[in-house]
Order: sequence, then structure tokens, then C-alpha cells
Amino acid sequence: MTQTIVESKTKTAVIGFDQPFCVIGERINPTGRKKLAAELEAGDFSTVEKDAVAQVLAGATVLDINAGVVYNSNPNPNETEPPLMKKIVELVQGLVDVPLCIDSSVPGALEAGLEVCEGRPLLNSVTGEEERLEEILPLVKKYNVPVVAISNDDTGISEDPDVRFAVAKKIVERAADFGIPAHDIVVDPLVMPVGAMGTAGLQVFALVRRLREELGVNTTCGASNISFGLPNRHGINNAFLPMAMGAGMTSAIMNPVALPIGPKKIAEKRAEVEASGIVLPADMDDEAFCQMFGLGSTKPRAGKEMEAIRAANFLTNNDPHGGEWIKFNKPPAKAGEEGRGRGGRAGGRRRRA
Amino acid sequence: MTQTIVESKTKTAVIGFDQPFCVIGERINPTGRKKLAAELEAGDFSTVEKDAVAQVLAGATVLDINAGVVYNSNPNPNETEPPLMKKIVELVQGLVDVPLCIDSSVPGALEAGLEVCEGRPLLNSVTGEEERLEEILPLVKKYNVPVVAISNDDTGISEDPDVRFAVAKKIVERAADFGIPAHDIVVDPLVMPVGAMGTAGLQVFALVRRLREELGVNTTCGASNISFGLPNRHGINNAFLPMAMGAGMTSAIMNPVALPIGPKKIAEKRAEVEASGIVLPADMDDEAFCQMFGLGSTKPRAGKEMEAIRAANFLTNNDPHGGEWIKFNKPPAKAGEEGRGRGGRAGGRRRRA
Repeated sequence: MTQTIVESKTKTAVIGFDQPFCVIGERINPTGRKKLAAELEAGDFSTVEKDAVAQVLAGATVLDINAGVVYNSNPNPNETEPPLMKKIVELVQGLVDVPLCIDSSVPGALEAGLEVCEGRPLLNSVTGEEERLEEILPLVKKYNVPVVAISNDDTGISEDPDVRFAVAKKIVERAADFGIPAHDIVVDPLVMPVGAMGTAGLQVFALVRRLREELGVNTTCGASNISFGLPNRHGINNAFLPMAMGAGMTSAIMNPVALPIGPKKIAEKRAEVEASGIVLPADMDDEAFCQMFGLGSTKPRAGKEMEAIRAANFLTNNDPHGGEWIKFNKPPAKAGEEGRGRGGRAGGRRRRA
Repeated sequence: MTQTIVESKTKTAVIGFDQPFCVIGERINPTGRKKLAAELEAGDFSTVEKDAVAQVLAGATVLDINAGVVYNSNPNPNETEPPLMKKIVELVQGLVDVPLCIDSSVPGALEAGLEVCEGRPLLNSVTGEEERLEEILPLVKKYNVPVVAISNDDTGISEDPDVRFAVAKKIVERAADFGIPAHDIVVDPLVMPVGAMGTAGLQVFALVRRLREELGVNTTCGASNISFGLPNRHGINNAFLPMAMGAGMTSAIMNPVALPIGPKKIAEKRAEVEASGIVLPADMDDEAFCQMFGLGSTKPRAGKEMEAIRAANFLTNNDPHGGEWIKFNKPPAKAGEEGRGRGGRAGGRRRRA
């Protein structure tokens, strides 16, 4: 059975066909997060700290660390990204104990992360591009770490799954030339948005099966790509992840945390409540309000995708006797038992008969 | 491509590898429903009427009709079930236009249903038991209808999936002797509870794939069996259905309707609301209350399983351009636009950016 071993100083995450799905938390990444990017340039790491803790609490077993911010003060990431990567890796591994995934397009940032990271991090990523293969595989060999292999090459991303399989095969073969075993390659077969390509799901399921059966490698993906541009993205993601797991996918880079209810949604609901003639007690804070009116919570908690993944772990026989499922669905403390702030609906789950 | 054609007087439901999943509504069945059983004995068909309409509205494309009630006044179902089956089939086909599935363990009730049913109903079911094969297959042939084939035989239900496959194969071969083609056999590979057998999910996925590839037959199952005895059954079902569809399952006998919020839950929430110091307007009825406090609705509506199935239809490329997905997730009318009774959360779905 193929197993990819990822380690922190104290903890091991095993990616494998006979293992629970490996959830790689994607939140520590300034790409597309303007506020976080500005914070990082200003030396403010409070969001990174919060995201690290929240993702682990929600069930991430590995955390991806991407320091890809382009500073306003210095537009050269080759200069700015390596020290920032080093800083974030040190910060996060001091805060949580899960293994890390060092993620960058800048080779210097990857090496900076590898230098300071304790244990055996996952490297993210190599592609089938010639230059990238030559740059990254020696790092993988030197630090003896597993690596994410993305199935695009110098010709770009092919829409033909056979071409993407061939690229993955080339990377595995090239890695073997460096003495890197297939079980240290985690292939990302590339997930297209199903809204743009109706066969996107079927392609991934077929590719994952082939990668597992023919190359014996573990697989990962940027799971939320599948629902890009569609309404109710969580509804698509919640079906996609179990289907991919059923086909043999062994990990995903994803957000395990449900978006906390924001001030705008709370203000809208407060207005609706007021308009209906309901009178609230004067001391009802936002958290109590959200729970009373079924909005959810202002605090981060596990997203619905985590429920889907835990159910699929059980259904692929990777949750012996359903111990994890039962723990995950334990009824929360009853309203009133621990004070008003914690209603019976915390987490939105409850035991059924 | 294997296609099983099921028809009412005016509507066709196609079960097939290249079709959206066929949802066979299971609610019209007095087994385990004491209240419904008593109503039927008393000649009260109001619940049957409500269940027929609610299931079709929720997305069922075929309705299962089971009249298996044991009367207190006459304990012989061979006498009581055939006329009751006839009555219910006539009633339901006068009320909704979807095809029906005639479901009984009493051969006389099956024939009674077949006699009055318009179009081409699905027959439920034959097994690998010798007596049953000899009784049911001639009916299938005589009425030229498709049939559900359950993979147990005179030795019972085997825990060994290879034995269940062999039973299915035997039924398909025996049917061929009667001139019944494989595309008119819909095999139920039998779903065990995953809480009792950790391999239950993997067994079904592997069996569905074999049944499709080796016998070329469509498949169905009693989907909710998988979660029997577990907490948060919907969480398991919502992952199981997409995984089964990914493996090639083409239909399921299931409840497409979410349980409406009952009086007990409403009373509990009203007590919680009162204890918190909230003052409600005097004229707030239960439906408005449920919507305001995020409980859901007192009215029947599509269950979460229907969301999972629609997402999986899209991901198996059986929802061209996601038209059905987008329609299913259309934002409901905004609160206030159509009066107070219909809040913005009706159906619990809303468009996301």
C-alpha cells in the first residue's frame, strides 16, 4: 500500500490508500487575500496565527504555507518571499503541531522553508515543466521530502486527461532518476471547473483511478476549483470530495473552516427581526443572536466539507467502527447548561435517533 | 448504453448510465408507519395523497407503491393487499403524472397493481429464490415491465459480495430464459449498514461497478440502509449517494422529502426563545416562527440528499451546462417581497457569489 509520510517535529500525517483522507489546509496564502497581503507586508501575523489554529481545530492534518505576497515596497518576490516563508514556517510550527506543506513558485522560498521546517514537510510543487523539474527535484532529493506534482508541462494545462496522465508519469519517471520513490510523489491531476467543462468530474475520477492503479501514487487537488463560478459551491464540493475519495483520491488542498457569520449578515438579520415586531433583550450579543436565529456562529468551525469527508472516510472503511464519525457528531452541550452564549445548535450538528 | 424505460400514461422516466439519477420515492409504504397503516385500514388515503404530491415536488421521478399493511380485521394479506394496491395505484396515478413502482411481497398484489397501472411501471421485486423466480418472471414477461432484482436467494442474504453478484447473475440469466432482456432488470446489490460492517460502502461501490461492466444492468438500492443505527444519518447518506453514483449506481429507493419541523421541536424552540427574554409578536404563526429562527419549514420540501444527488448528476456529466443545478439553487423570493410568511431562507438555499 502506497504511503506518503509527512511529519512535523512531533506528529506524523500519513497519506495513503488505507488512511483517512488527508486535509491540507489552504488558508495561509495571501494570493487573492488583499487584507492578509497588506498585513504580512506590515509585519502583522495575527491572521496567520488565527488561520493556523482554526484550520487545525476544524480537522486539517497538514497546513499549507504560501508566502506569495508581492510587496508594494519591493516588487521582487525572489528577495522578499524567502525571508517571509522562513518567518511564517517558524511562527506556525511554534503554534500548532501538525506537519506543514511548503508552497511556493519561488525556488528560493521553497528552500528557505525547507531549511527551517522541522520534521518532513510536503513540498508544493513540481510540474512537468523542464526548468521546474531541474530546479525542484534536486531539492526534494537533498531534503528527502515528498512533493506535490502538478500535471501541467511546458505546453500548459491540457484539457485531455490522457495528456495530464502522461505528464504525471513523466514526473514520476524523472523523480526516479533522482532516486525519489513514487510513494513520495503526490500527483495533482488538476481539477477543472465543472461549470466550464461538463466532463471535469469524470476526468478527475478516471485520472485518480489510473494514477493509483498504474503509477501507485497518492493524489491531491485544489478541491474547490470544481465549483468555480457556480451557485451553492459548497453543495458541489460536498458531493465532489466523497466521489473523488471513492475513486481513490487520498488528499486535498482545501479550506476546512466554515466562514464565520460576518457583521453584514448579522445586521441584515437584525433588521429583519426588528421589522417582524420581535423584541430582543438588550444584552443579546452577536454570538447569542446568531445561534438563537439559526445563522450559525461568529466563530470559525468545521465546514460542511469536513462532514462529507468524515462520512466518506467511514464509507471507504478508513474509520474503524465509525469512532471518528460518532465523535464528530456528538451532541453539543444543551442550551443553558453552559450559559447563554452556547446554544444547543453549536456546530449545527445533533444526534439523530 | 443500458436504458430501463419506466412510463406512466404521459411521462417517461429513463434509468440509465447516461441519465440523471432516478429517485424512486419510498414514502407510500405502511411498513413501520403505524399511523399510515391504521389510516389505510380505515379507508383514509389523505396521507398517501400528501406523500405522493410532496415526493414529486421534492424531485422523485418514480413513486414506489407498497400496500403491505396487515389489517386488524383480516390478517391475510393475500386477501386484503391486492384490492388495497389497486385502490392506491388508481388514486396516485390520478393525482401525479410520474411513473410508478409496484412493490409487494404478495404476488397477487403485484398483479393487481399491474392490471390497473397505466403505462409501464417498474415491478418490485424478484429475488434469486426459486419460488419467487417462478412466480414473478412470468408476470414480468406477461406485462412487459422492468423489474427490481434483489441479490438474495434461498440461502438468505450473503455478506460475501461475490455471492450477491452470483445471485444477480443467476436472476439475469433466468430472466433471459423468459425472453426478458438485461436492460429490464434493475439489480439491488443490497446495502448493509456501515455501522455493522465497515466494508459495506466499498462492497456496494465494487458491486455496482461489476454489475454495470459485466452484466450491463442498471442498479438501485434502499439507500438509507447504509446509515442505519448511526448518528447524523443524513450526513452519511449525503456522502454515500454521490459515491454510489460515481461507481455507476443509476437509481435509489429513498425519501426525497425533508422531514417537516414537528410540533415538539417547535415547542422546544419556543421555550428556549421565551427563556432568553425575547418577546414575539402575538400573531407569529409556526411557519413564520420556524423560518425566523432558522429551524426550517413546517412544510415538506426537498431533503439534503436531493442536493447531493443533483450535484452528483452535474459531476457525472448528466446535467448539461448545470442547468438543473442552477435552477435548483435559484435564490428564493426575498423576505418581505411576498409577505411575512416567506422569509429569505425558504429551502435553506441561496445564491453565492
